[in-house]
Amino acid sequence: MVSTILYQGKAKNVHSTEDKDVLRLEYLDQATALNGKKKDAIRGKGELNNQITSLIFSELTKQGIKNHWLESISDKEQLVKKVEIIPLEVVLRNIATGSFTKRLGVKEGTKLPFPIIEFYYKDDELDDPFINEDHIKYLDIASESEVANLKKQALEINQKLQELFQSIDVTLVDFKLEFGKDTFNEIILSDEITPDTCRLWDQKTGQSLDKDIYRKDLGEIIPVYQEILNRLEERGE
Amino acid sequence: MVSTILYQGKAKNVHSTEDKDVLRLEYLDQATALNGKKKDAIRGKGELNNQITSLIFSELTKQGIKNHWLESISDKEQLVKKVEIIPLEVVLRNIATGSFTKRLGVKEGTKLPFPIIEFYYKDDELDDPFINEDHIKYLDIASESEVANLKKQALEINQKLQELFQSIDVTLVDFKLEFGKDTFNEIILSDEITPDTCRLWDQKTGQSLDKDIYRKDLGEIIPVYQEILNRLEERGE
Repeated sequence: MVSTILYQGKAKNVHSTEDKDVLRLEYLDQATALNGKKKDAIRGKGELNNQITSLIFSELTKQGIKNHWLESISDKEQLVKKVEIIPLEVVLRNIATGSFTKRLGVKEGTKLPFPIIEFYYKDDELDDPFINEDHIKYLDIASESEVANLKKQALEINQKLQELFQSIDVTLVDFKLEFGKDTFNEIILSDEITPDTCRLWDQKTGQSLDKDIYRKDLGEIIPVYQEILNRLEERGE
Repeated sequence: MVSTILYQGKAKNVHSTEDKDVLRLEYLDQATALNGKKKDAIRGKGELNNQITSLIFSELTKQGIKNHWLESISDKEQLVKKVEIIPLEVVLRNIATGSFTKRLGVKEGTKLPFPIIEFYYKDDELDDPFINEDHIKYLDIASESEVANLKKQALEINQKLQELFQSIDVTLVDFKLEFGKDTFNEIILSDEITPDTCRLWDQKTGQSLDKDIYRKDLGEIIPVYQEILNRLEERGE
């Protein structure tokens, strides 16, 4: 397959394909945390994340959520629509944890009365800073109506994902989305939805089934990511 | 005068008065920075700030900006309408400096194409964190329409203050406002507007005429605050 690496990310590489409107994502056996300061090779992670995000994006497509995912083409590779990524991490929180508890002095695990959205500026050098909507306007990242669109989509996606994870006895605590503009200039869900980008708590044990295992050195992530994949696959049967 | 200290602040104490709708503010000879980690007694500061903020609030009143200020009653004391302070620092930026340059990677001194508003949660224990409007809603600090009101007022006050400082050859770089609800539940400008709460640059020399002198150990603040007061007083003559 003729292709060029367009972008080398922390967890995946982005390749061009012969079709100018299609990209090939290659999921890597690599985990990072603390904005890349912690980094490890973890065999099997790329394959699991490719399968998990493919399953979730395909489910979202069925539910009417437009997104970049086209098809999984190998263990670690998938084809996606080419989009111009909007440099924002759109974070949606259903339960207080992580930086939110520290920022606002809220007790870990507090159920939030409504989903809270935060924007972070995707910029490694600046450590992906938390920003507000005036900053987004100043940085010319998105217009006011585009920001409203992002929030609306994030809330819709949250509803679909909450239902999906509920059906496999997992609580969707919070997650990060990225969006991009497709060739028709429409803003669609992009990037990935995996235990790398979501906080997922087992509803019976309360155990983290996500990258917090790696962030907090709580054990091996492969069995945990495999557990998420197994449950998602069993659900589909 | 019969009164009780209701609140001891970093730069002023708040006393009750015989009139339940009126408070007495006592400006202190004290400077703090880094959320109170740096603290010094500075003789003459209380008097200067009481005079400067009285002059500015009285000018804003003339210009139709409702606020809590009633009258200066001694060197260091003023009477204000009793309000219930909204626990937000409303920061308005005309020129990039301080935390803004670090957060967004913008060059110090960059003129902003429109005034940028930021909200910080007034909470000493949390170090007055930067928050967004979802956080304000979650913390039940203000409703959506109250937040819109705060932004509208902040922009109006910015216009008036820019004109005022322009007339004394000073650039209003950024500033912090606090608002409160009066006995009629109306949101009005409160707290103080002084070189403690504004960044002010001399238009000829570029020199800081504000608390950055203290924050950055650039020299004595009294001559600088006195300079601001002198220029404001000469303007009125």
